[in-house]
Amino acid sequence: MATKAVSVLITGANRGLGLEMVKQLVEASRDVRKLFACCRDPDGPRAEALQTLAKKHPDVIAVVRLDATDLCSIKQCAQQVGSVVGTGGLNLLINNAAVAVRTTMQETTPEELQHMFSTNVMGPMNIIKEFLPHLRAAAKASGTPGMSSCKAAIVNISSILGSIEGAKESYATYPCFSYRVSKAALNMLTLCASEELKKDEILLSVLHPGWVRTDMGGEEGEIDATESVRGLLGVMASLTEKQNGGFLDWKGRSIPW
Amino acid sequence: MATKAVSVLITGANRGLGLEMVKQLVEASRDVRKLFACCRDPDGPRAEALQTLAKKHPDVIAVVRLDATDLCSIKQCAQQVGSVVGTGGLNLLINNAAVAVRTTMQETTPEELQHMFSTNVMGPMNIIKEFLPHLRAAAKASGTPGMSSCKAAIVNISSILGSIEGAKESYATYPCFSYRVSKAALNMLTLCASEELKKDEILLSVLHPGWVRTDMGGEEGEIDATESVRGLLGVMASLTEKQNGGFLDWKGRSIPW
Repeated sequence: MATKAVSVLITGANRGLGLEMVKQLVEASRDVRKLFACCRDPDGPRAEALQTLAKKHPDVIAVVRLDATDLCSIKQCAQQVGSVVGTGGLNLLINNAAVAVRTTMQETTPEELQHMFSTNVMGPMNIIKEFLPHLRAAAKASGTPGMSSCKAAIVNISSILGSIEGAKESYATYPCFSYRVSKAALNMLTLCASEELKKDEILLSVLHPGWVRTDMGGEEGEIDATESVRGLLGVMASLTEKQNGGFLDWKGRSIPW
Repeated sequence: MATKAVSVLITGANRGLGLEMVKQLVEASRDVRKLFACCRDPDGPRAEALQTLAKKHPDVIAVVRLDATDLCSIKQCAQQVGSVVGTGGLNLLINNAAVAVRTTMQETTPEELQHMFSTNVMGPMNIIKEFLPHLRAAAKASGTPGMSSCKAAIVNISSILGSIEGAKESYATYPCFSYRVSKAALNMLTLCASEELKKDEILLSVLHPGWVRTDMGGEEGEIDATESVRGLLGVMASLTEKQNGGFLDWKGRSIPW
């Protein structure tokens, strides 16, 4: 089951989970008419797989430059997307771009914590704010009551490592200090935004993709990107106002804050 | 009941809760022999009340410059404190300095979110790391087993607004978007640090001071600074390893993450 969103935007779409999401959405969902696959350097060597995929589906996939740490690029991307979607708006925004490291607090430099914050927290806030007019347009254009990912939704990819409750048990094995701090901040950001935007009927959730074998997750991951994304897209498709402001894993199970 | 810590450091000590903590600690506790009252501008007009108090207790209170957003000043302060406490170390570090605003996400500028992060998250991390040798020295010097605020402890003043669980109910009335995001990050930081430093027998907790009538809390606050600080100091004095990594209010009641 994939989303019935007509227009979707994914950040960090050139590799790992982001690339797999583009792949499954374009191959499995006949509903997606426009898929904005965003990455920092669309013409660089790390975007080759995405460009190859985009060439196979030129009517659907648009590869667009977006650097989550650069407000200018976010504004430019929002303008480009707006000129394509028009009054139909953007149905689903997936904030997937993120950075991670495995250091402890004592190993974390101020520069590293700042980088995590800029990419994993400031980035999503700026992206949400700049794309808000397009999400509002989609909510307005849908004509149906309630909330869903095929109407107007923002999904922030977080992690179970962002669960403060869970940190007591898992910190010794997986410190990832700055990553955890940034994801707890992203979780709060999402919940606040979900409260603020519910009157616009824009749904927000944070999803944990599982421990995935990607560049970020490492080789010891428990599932592969295909399985994780199949789950994530299924969860996204099933979201209603009941899950607004929720923190769910790739199987739809609720995670404590 | 006040802490039996021999040496205490408080950031943001020139006004509000910080100033009241200095006052009550120096007046009520005969155990505190050295109280480092830190603020950004010790010679400025906003530190006059603190300087007046310090003149009354010249042997106990040392007013020291510390700007939570300036790593250099943190390092200098840590050096100064080290030269005073020596091998006895620092028993209790209270990260109280913070900034707050009441804006919604849509009103929050990137500059504001960055400022909240720099002061309320990056600041405490840098302070904890730079003062760690003095806290370790105190833990080593104590000779008693277990954890307590009179041995070696870090208390981060957070807020119930940093509770992600609580945001669903309270956001509409008190948005404070960037403040909430920064405090959720601080809560995660504290829990991670508590796990990382427990082998050193350094205790960490986050405390919510109540809604206090200060410059930050505003005139509608429910309690005054005297009552809040009386509660906070009582809670600090009662902390044991059971509360390590805990999130408690000024009455010692546990708050959900």
